Amino acid sequence: MTEYNDPAVRYYQEVFDQCIHYLSIDGVIFGFHQNQLKVLLLRWKGTDAWSLPGGFIRKAESVDVAAQRIMQERTGLDALYLQQFHVFGEAVRYDQEATWRKINLPVDGAKWSERTISLGYYALVEHSKVIPTPDFLTEVCAWWSLDDVPALLFDHNHIIAVALLSLRKDFNDQPLNHLLPDTFTIPELQRLHETILGLSLDGRNFYKKVMASGQLERLSERRAGTPHKAPFLYRFKPSEPTNRLPTLEAKTA
Amino acid sequence: MTEYNDPAVRYYQEVFDQCIHYLSIDGVIFGFHQNQLKVLLLRWKGTDAWSLPGGFIRKAESVDVAAQRIMQERTGLDALYLQQFHVFGEAVRYDQEATWRKINLPVDGAKWSERTISLGYYALVEHSKVIPTPDFLTEVCAWWSLDDVPALLFDHNHIIAVALLSLRKDFNDQPLNHLLPDTFTIPELQRLHETILGLSLDGRNFYKKVMASGQLERLSERRAGTPHKAPFLYRFKPSEPTNRLPTLEAKTA
Repeated sequence: MTEYNDPAVRYYQEVFDQCIHYLSIDGVIFGFHQNQLKVLLLRWKGTDAWSLPGGFIRKAESVDVAAQRIMQERTGLDALYLQQFHVFGEAVRYDQEATWRKINLPVDGAKWSERTISLGYYALVEHSKVIPTPDFLTEVCAWWSLDDVPALLFDHNHIIAVALLSLRKDFNDQPLNHLLPDTFTIPELQRLHETILGLSLDGRNFYKKVMASGQLERLSERRAGTPHKAPFLYRFKPSEPTNRLPTLEAKTA
Repeated sequence: MTEYNDPAVRYYQEVFDQCIHYLSIDGVIFGFHQNQLKVLLLRWKGTDAWSLPGGFIRKAESVDVAAQRIMQERTGLDALYLQQFHVFGEAVRYDQEATWRKINLPVDGAKWSERTISLGYYALVEHSKVIPTPDFLTEVCAWWSLDDVPALLFDHNHIIAVALLSLRKDFNDQPLNHLLPDTFTIPELQRLHETILGLSLDGRNFYKKVMASGQLERLSERRAGTPHKAPFLYRFKPSEPTNRLPTLEAKTA
């Protein structure tokens, strides 16, 4: 049984012993960079196969704590802004045998779990603060623009699609400042809104609405390195605890 | 070990053998009756302790299918309108030993599961079509107005509170017709909106908005047995697949 010397199989044995069976957590970690909404993906060792970050819940661990632990390990960030968004509980979510072959795991090692129900969480993080960190099953952890995400392992393309729909649905309840650096320009803020909503917004209306919300303050600095007239930098007023912007109606530009 | 003759303990042994460990489903079944939003509750045999309906997921069963099965058994309704709304995953959700004593289960029978993570679903049902049916652990299945719900077993008061918040948040995406009989009056529809939102709405604005949505049609009949001028009956137009009403802004009457 040489395959049981495989560290991955030993890991799954450990999970079997210490974690809740049949349940996993998958994380869609959203970041905003270069005017694009991005997600953090992992490439599995010795393959060109990518997946979302994920993990398992220890037997006496709160589900939310497990999600924090898993996302922290991949980002280096404490106290991430996390949101449960869906339970992926189909009896057969994907072809398990074919998937395990792709990532070079011995297929009979998969027997420990006939199925996994996944609890989907999304995180909103500030791109520049993340230190993408693979786990010991993977060798690359990297940002992918949502438009370029390749065909992923498991049902992870589906999970991302549902996460994005949930983020859109929750849009007006989400503290978007988690996705932004401390200072930003109004066009950058507008692009973030447009990217999440999948819509074009009218620039002048957008400016009026976000300024009318009273939650932003203009700094005296402007964005450096901008070719044309440099736009001013803004930040969320520190006194506003939620940093939420008002409901925005979409207007095609 | 006479306690293992207890049918409840035998049931939990069966659950242990056939279902996914550590996971349960709890259902908040919402109905609308006599201008009140109500939930379906169960009274446990030989006690005055009430809980939500719930159950477990078979090892090869989809989570959504399990939820349908569980809610169908308590309501007699097929193909209920169900919505996942939250995973209750705290490491300690309630005092398990005290709870099991309240419902006369031998406490060491609880050892099969040190904890349960609950997947919360809410259902929107038409009150008049439901046949409330207890399971073999309970002896009464009955509607309770949300305002009168007693202190429940487990963390079920908390689960109802989160379900109601979720229903409010999802309000404009929900097909409310599931909560209504085929025909209804505008004041009844308004009361349903007010009850879910926990707000008073201005009657004239409400009427204008719902009529402007174009989704309702007035019948020639009026509500019988109304003391004053009998209001007309309406129904959702059969041609509208979603039967969703437009976003309503709250106005205190």
